[in-house]
This record gives sequence, C-alpha cells and structure tokens, in this order.
Amino acid sequence: MDARAASAAPRAGRAATMTSLRGAADPEAEVGPELRRLLAEREASALTHGDEFALLWRLAGEQIADGKMLRPRMLLRLHAALSDRPDPAVSSRCSDSAAPRTVLQLACAIELLHFAFLLHDDVIDGDLQRRHAPNLIARLQDQHPAPARGTNAAARHWGCTGAILMGDLLLTEVHRIFALADLPAAVRTRMLRLLHSTISTTVAGELTDTALSDGVIADEPETVLRMTAEKTAAYSFALPLRLAVILAGRGEDLETVLATVSRALGLAYQVQDDALAMFGDGRSHGKDPCSDLREGKRTTLVAHARRTGAWEDIAPRFGAADLTEAEADAMRDRFRACGAEEFAHRLVAQQLARARAGIADAARAGLLPPPARAVLDDVVGLIDGRAS
Amino acid sequence: MDARAASAAPRAGRAATMTSLRGAADPEAEVGPELRRLLAEREASALTHGDEFALLWRLAGEQIADGKMLRPRMLLRLHAALSDRPDPAVSSRCSDSAAPRTVLQLACAIELLHFAFLLHDDVIDGDLQRRHAPNLIARLQDQHPAPARGTNAAARHWGCTGAILMGDLLLTEVHRIFALADLPAAVRTRMLRLLHSTISTTVAGELTDTALSDGVIADEPETVLRMTAEKTAAYSFALPLRLAVILAGRGEDLETVLATVSRALGLAYQVQDDALAMFGDGRSHGKDPCSDLREGKRTTLVAHARRTGAWEDIAPRFGAADLTEAEADAMRDRFRACGAEEFAHRLVAQQLARARAGIADAARAGLLPPPARAVLDDVVGLIDGRAS
Repeated sequence: MDARAASAAPRAGRAATMTSLRGAADPEAEVGPELRRLLAEREASALTHGDEFALLWRLAGEQIADGKMLRPRMLLRLHAALSDRPDPAVSSRCSDSAAPRTVLQLACAIELLHFAFLLHDDVIDGDLQRRHAPNLIARLQDQHPAPARGTNAAARHWGCTGAILMGDLLLTEVHRIFALADLPAAVRTRMLRLLHSTISTTVAGELTDTALSDGVIADEPETVLRMTAEKTAAYSFALPLRLAVILAGRGEDLETVLATVSRALGLAYQVQDDALAMFGDGRSHGKDPCSDLREGKRTTLVAHARRTGAWEDIAPRFGAADLTEAEADAMRDRFRACGAEEFAHRLVAQQLARARAGIADAARAGLLPPPARAVLDDVVGLIDGRAS
Repeated sequence: MDARAASAAPRAGRAATMTSLRGAADPEAEVGPELRRLLAEREASALTHGDEFALLWRLAGEQIADGKMLRPRMLLRLHAALSDRPDPAVSSRCSDSAAPRTVLQLACAIELLHFAFLLHDDVIDGDLQRRHAPNLIARLQDQHPAPARGTNAAARHWGCTGAILMGDLLLTEVHRIFALADLPAAVRTRMLRLLHSTISTTVAGELTDTALSDGVIADEPETVLRMTAEKTAAYSFALPLRLAVILAGRGEDLETVLATVSRALGLAYQVQDDALAMFGDGRSHGKDPCSDLREGKRTTLVAHARRTGAWEDIAPRFGAADLTEAEADAMRDRFRACGAEEFAHRLVAQQLARARAGIADAARAGLLPPPARAVLDDVVGLIDGRAS
C-alpha cells in the first residue's frame, strides 16, 4: 500500500501554531492523525492474514497513538525553522526543501522507529509497563484465553512473540517510508545512510546495555557512558535533527555540528531518565520504579555507586528478580547516600552546557539561522526542566 | 558503508558452470564470498561500538556463511534464464536486465532475510540448535563468562538478546541493500513493494503459528494450511522467483503466475519439513527431533491427528517442555499410526502437482522461455526428492 496515495486525507482541525511549513496548517498537530490513518490501513489489510494479525496491529496502533511524539515534533520544528532560507551552496543539488507531506510521513516514521525499539527493549528487559499503562506484551497477554493468564506461560509467550514480531513489522514500515519517500535520489540516499547508521548505533547501545546487565563485560565508567549515549542520542536526537537538515536542503557541516550536540543531549536525557527511574515519582515517570533495580541495569548511577563503599550493601540484592518494594526503597536510599543522584545531576548539567556551547558555536559560524537556534535552545530547555 | 564501493572485490576462483549472467564467471559461486565480504565489513565497523558488538557480527557471520544459499541460487538461476530475451512489452520501461553485481547483492540480501527470520524464530521457539549445530543463541550463551553457562539465566538471556538484536540488524541490512540498489526508480519501487509485502506475510504466518501453539486460536485445518503457506512460501519461493522476474525486466503477468506456483511450492516444502522434523532422521535434518513436539507446534500433521482417535493419547503430553525422548518416540508412533505421515505425503504430492501445472500453463502461454521453465522444474524436482 502506498502512503502517498492518501495525500487528500482530512487534516486535523486544531488551530495553527506554526505556519512556516508551506501548505500545512499545523504540521505538528497532523502527526497523530497521520499515524492513526497509516496504522488503520495496516490493520485493515492485516485482516487477510487472520484476526490475530489484525488484533496485533490494532493494539500496537492504540499504543503508538498514545505517544508524546517528541521526536517527530523536533524534526518538524527544526525543518520549518531551516526551510525559510536554504543554504545557497547546497541548493544547486537539492533545489528546494522537501514537500510538507513527505516531511510529515518521515516524522511519523521516526515515531514508529521509537516504538519498534521500545517493543524489543521491553522483550529484552521483561517489562510489562510503559507510559503508566500495560505495554503491548501485557495487552496481548490480557487477550489470551487462559484462565490465569497473568501467570500463564503460554499467555506470556504470546505477549513476547507479538512484541518481537510487531517490532519487525514497524522496522519494515520505517524502512518502507524512507525508501519510498518522494525525494530527489541524492537526498534520499543521504537520508537512508543516516537511518541505517542510526539503527546500527542504537542496537549496539542496547547490546552493550545487556552485556553489562548480564555480566558479559565489566562496567567501566567509559563503557557505561558510551552505551548510555548510543542507545538514546542517535535515534532520539541525531536522527530527527539531522533529518531536518537533510530535508531542508542544508549542508553536511550543520549535520556534523548537530551530531555532536545530539550526543550531549542524548546523554543528558538518558542519565536524567535513569535518575528519574531510580529516584523520581514512579507515578509521573510511568515506568515501574523497581524494574531497573530488579533487572540490574548498569546505568551511570550504578557505575558511580560501584566505586563507593555503598556498593558492598547494594550488590547482594542488586538485580534480584524478587526484590521487594521495601528492599528497593532501602537500596534507593543507599544510592542517594553515596552521591549517585548528585553525580547524575552534575553529569546532566555538564552535557547540557556542552550542547548549549555547540549550538552557540554553530550560530556564530552562520550555520544556524535564529529561528533554528531557538528550536534547539527549546530542546535543551525541555531536558533541563524535565521532572518526569 | 556502501556495498557498491567494493565492486572490485576479488571473484571466487571456482570454475564457471553458468555463463548467461553477462560479465560474471559463476554468480552462484560468488554468493558465499560476497556475503563473507559484506559481513567482514560489518564486523570491522562494529568494533567502534565495543568488542561485544563485533563478536555478535562475527558469530552471526560464521553461521550465515555456513548456509546452503538455496534462495539466492534460485534467484540467480531464474534471472539468468530470463535475461536472454527480455519481454519487449516491458523493455521500454526497464530497458535492460539488471547488472550482475546488483543481482548478486540482492541475492545476498535474500539470504540475510532468511537468517533474520531464523533468528527471531529460534528466539520465539526457544530453540538452541539449527543445521546440526548450536545456533546463534547457543553460541552466544557459550561465550558467557558464567561457570555453568548452559543453565545460567543471564547466559541464556544474553543469547536471546543477541539473536533479537542481530535479527533487527540483518533486517536493516536487507532493506539497505534493496533501497540503495543501483536500478531505475520504477524497478526499485516494484522490488521494494515485493520486499515489504513478503515480510508482512511471513511475519503474519509466524504470528499465526504461535497463536496456534499458544492456544490463542483454534487449529482449524484451513488456518493451519494458511499459516504453513504464509510462513514459508512468500520469502523462500515467491521473493526470489518474483525478484528474478523484476530484475530481468519481465512483466507482472509472469510475477502473478509465480506467486501461485510459489504458494504450492512453499506449502509442499513446509509440510515436508514438518514431516521430516517428526519422522525423519534428526541427524540429517539438523533440528532437534523432539523440539516441535515439546513446543506443541500445530503443523498440518497435528491438525490431521487432532481429527482422529489417536489424539486422545497424544494430547496429554503434546507440547510438554519436559517430554522425554522415549515419550517422543511413542508419540511419533501414534502420529504414524493415525495416518499423519501418509496425509503429509499426499498433501506434498498434491501441491507439487499444482506447481507443475502452473509452470506448464505459463510455458504454454509463452511467459516462460525453455531455460526458465527448466529452472522451475528443477526446483520442483528438488523438493520432490528431498529426504532431509
């Protein structure tokens, strides 16, 4: 099925807050409807392969539509901010910025990639909860006909299988949208290479994360730091920001700057996420507050605690699948007492300062027009002020 | 990294057995070396993301290089047989058959897709053996530093995680090769659509397979038959055969014929595979002869037995993870006694007859030149004579 065929799909009726993407009222407001349309199409065509296949698409679609769409929004905002004055040096090759509809479809693809990673991550981590609610594994498990499905092995297997396979389908969907994007060949190739290296880097980060948790490699601070940056920065920051540059017809020098800025942003975001998972309010963070401790996740906080006297008390029950909530509370106190929370906050502040410096340098070098700089400053501010 | 950049890679020194692919001595003999070159490149660039990431690529590469390359060979043979006389009706759009190097790269991609499916299938089925040897999960488990790694939970988790993530990487590699293939836009789009629908169909078949095993849906004979065709026919037969048609610049009418022929071939192949897994010699089949019985796989043989009096004796221990070899032997005898083996043989013969009839019709309609018909007849003969 061709996503382009539906270019006359009704637009969302919400008020326009940005107008620089020519022809589109409010591209950010269109991400949700566009994703829902795409997923409804997939669900409808899935029916030819059985009800259970269509159900899988429906459940996944419900969860995807519920997302915050941060990554697509970042792409759309930066693209809009960069599209007003294309770089004359590049405009001979890429004569203009990409059409709004193509950019919107690619923005949707970025959200699908995020969800595909979440699905395989949840299978690997054995998680059943995401964004305050049962994740796809848990939802599928709930659909199983077994009487005690919450603890039934077949029901759990069904949930994990669905999540593995839906991850494969979404990954394919992402590649489909990128490969069939209506763009000049040179632009599409540049964009495809970015996608492929993004996936490779993210998967490498996920593998290292597991290698650390499973005791395959030692948790040297630099390994934990590399893993933390790889599993988040590449797909959550570098991909949307660099894609905006490519689609706006801008040069590779700006991409290089944004790759460096993105690493700092990704590191800050992920360290903050690990700190919130450990010390934050589980109700607002949306993840089971014991899950990282039960999995024995080797975050930068853990790498810090390992190098203090507190580790002796933490180690015996760290990573125990049957860790009680009371034990988790006591463990959290030990992490706090040895300075892990403070260490995380310092690391986040340091990386955000690095990101701000990179943005300021690029602006001084004339690579970032003021509206584009404002978008990036907003992203830094969003991470800086994040509490959940 | 660009696979095309290595177009001057040394060719295999084996004697030429086919000469119709212009410029290539023996394209079939080049699949192995080309795959090894591609995988060695991936392993080398993986090192920047840590030793464990490079190790994953190395272990996967060793297993992939060990494959029989049936699917790439099928593509190369049919493409060569169709390339001598392109269809004049289509040649205005696709002025010529694709370059040998592009066809070779796509042939490699098809083998990578096969392996990606095997990896996720092994994770889903909990298998540790493939092609007479430990699979990637077992190999990774063997690399784990735990003392009793064979039974260690972290070692097993490490193995499964590596297989999930390598599946994602290979799927991405397949999409990369297809999307960046040096072909006219119309040919590439046609080929990409085939790839996307192939993956969707295969995943749907795999999901239905699990839904049957996990008791989510009832094992109606037609559901089992649909699943059996979907999980094998689309990627093992229709993809290589239809891709050969597209790359040879032939029309969609031949693709339609081959889609029907492929369904029959895939069904025959998979039913035969299920029968060999149950009744064949485990040593030559290469799969643990108890694994399907322990997993409770709902094959067409099981669907048959379910409708006989034998099921009463089979059911209580069918799908038991702790099924002993003696119990498995007794269960096999019951399957044989109720006519399941004979039923499978009849079904295989019927589907092969259907495939032969489709091929003969296409030849009569002038869609298949004699060399191409000979290739397809060979494929039928290969399945017909298969004993392991």
